[in-house]
Amino acid sequence: MRKLYLIGIGAGNPEYITVQAIKALNLVDVFFFMDKGKAKQDLVNLRKQICERYIEKTSYRVVEADDPVRDTTISDYTTRVELWHRQRALVYEEMIAQQLEENQCGGFLVWGDPSLYDSTLRVIEHIIACGRLCFEFEVIPGITSIQVLAARHKISLNGIGESIVITTGRQLSAGLSGTAERTIVMLDGQCSFNSLLDEELDIFWGAYLGMEEEILLSGKLSEIAGMIEKVRHEKRQRNGWIMDTYLLSKPNRAAQARVPRTGTSCDHNDL
Amino acid sequence: MRKLYLIGIGAGNPEYITVQAIKALNLVDVFFFMDKGKAKQDLVNLRKQICERYIEKTSYRVVEADDPVRDTTISDYTTRVELWHRQRALVYEEMIAQQLEENQCGGFLVWGDPSLYDSTLRVIEHIIACGRLCFEFEVIPGITSIQVLAARHKISLNGIGESIVITTGRQLSAGLSGTAERTIVMLDGQCSFNSLLDEELDIFWGAYLGMEEEILLSGKLSEIAGMIEKVRHEKRQRNGWIMDTYLLSKPNRAAQARVPRTGTSCDHNDL
Repeated sequence: MRKLYLIGIGAGNPEYITVQAIKALNLVDVFFFMDKGKAKQDLVNLRKQICERYIEKTSYRVVEADDPVRDTTISDYTTRVELWHRQRALVYEEMIAQQLEENQCGGFLVWGDPSLYDSTLRVIEHIIACGRLCFEFEVIPGITSIQVLAARHKISLNGIGESIVITTGRQLSAGLSGTAERTIVMLDGQCSFNSLLDEELDIFWGAYLGMEEEILLSGKLSEIAGMIEKVRHEKRQRNGWIMDTYLLSKPNRAAQARVPRTGTSCDHNDL
Repeated sequence: MRKLYLIGIGAGNPEYITVQAIKALNLVDVFFFMDKGKAKQDLVNLRKQICERYIEKTSYRVVEADDPVRDTTISDYTTRVELWHRQRALVYEEMIAQQLEENQCGGFLVWGDPSLYDSTLRVIEHIIACGRLCFEFEVIPGITSIQVLAARHKISLNGIGESIVITTGRQLSAGLSGTAERTIVMLDGQCSFNSLLDEELDIFWGAYLGMEEEILLSGKLSEIAGMIEKVRHEKRQRNGWIMDTYLLSKPNRAAQARVPRTGTSCDHNDL
């Protein structure tokens, strides 16, 4: 039977990959690369770099496919994304059927972790639900950008015994969830933190986390929101894409969270 | 100058370790092991196993210390934990000062990820705040039990574009946070899910995640809560300790979350 591996490759730094993921990479006969948008070529290159660095055999193949475009005429976000997943499922299904022989292993290299704000798992579910293609699959966890953000800022994600909310820019623009002391925001292309400048919050922001170009900024949200927006805009212009994430913390907790550092806030991975 | 590495070693499976963590392990001269409670010996053994498997040099040392006991006469949870962190800080400070020479590297092997419900980072902050000992430190992220839970159940942690709450058993017993569709619960020694049997929820539960004895159970909370409690009690009795975590999902989301599986719900890591 065919087998698919959904392999979390970590966020940015090729050394975030786990030993388990390296083992899985070495079992794969055909890798399917389907990146989208402006980051596409950079992320495809990172995946190729990971394959070249960690795979010992030379017999694997890489199949790249064009990602379907989201139908922007559909106004409801969830409906739009779900339809897009179904379209992706058709493309994936055809790719797997045509490119992967029975008894071969296919691999999807997932940025970060397959369980967190990634669609690959849902697309695989759609294919299974259609029932036309039979395969096993396994999920290999990977380091997320959230963990890299915390490690590089040297902060805890949670206050002692407290809850954490992980949310999206879209959700944040509707307001901060009242209960949690700390909120982690992903997928925020609109700088939604600007809607919270009246609240007393600290921000720990990071872009291109784990990569050569990593940028870290932290401070009072009301004081550095403008700088973050400016840096974000400039970097996106220059590179053609940006990926960033941040943690918002109520200030009494920020005192716990912030650590005196010996380095600067912009130093790069020491390892 | 002395340097400390806080190294996330992942949850359970020694193959969850990252290439970055292996590099850091190989820089460390002295490892400090400070586990507590009933799991102590098993977790110390896992750390030793990781050192033996991944460190190439033979010159490193391991220093084990007794962990201070929490003062149970202090009723407020946060106060009790903060005081315990300060006591730990004194023990760590003395250990580092006595066992680590200038220009040597010390290492703390942290279960899961140093940024998530772990005290090592806070203890290091206390030592820095005291100002008696000068050192650099670096945080190396690791795979958390949450990620292992999701990977092994083959579920996404988030619904499409939705928020997630990560919380503790203690917080959950005060009620489910109203806004998020999915809640991940850690540090729940009291089976606090029993307070939510009236709500329509699905549960994805895992214990000893990533380890030989891994147990996975999932289903409607109201139907399987009793079984989870029974299994949890028996395993804790037999092993002397248990570590478990779970995801609660509102049912319309559970349909998205649950994936038809080819294996059973109790099969072990394929890799």
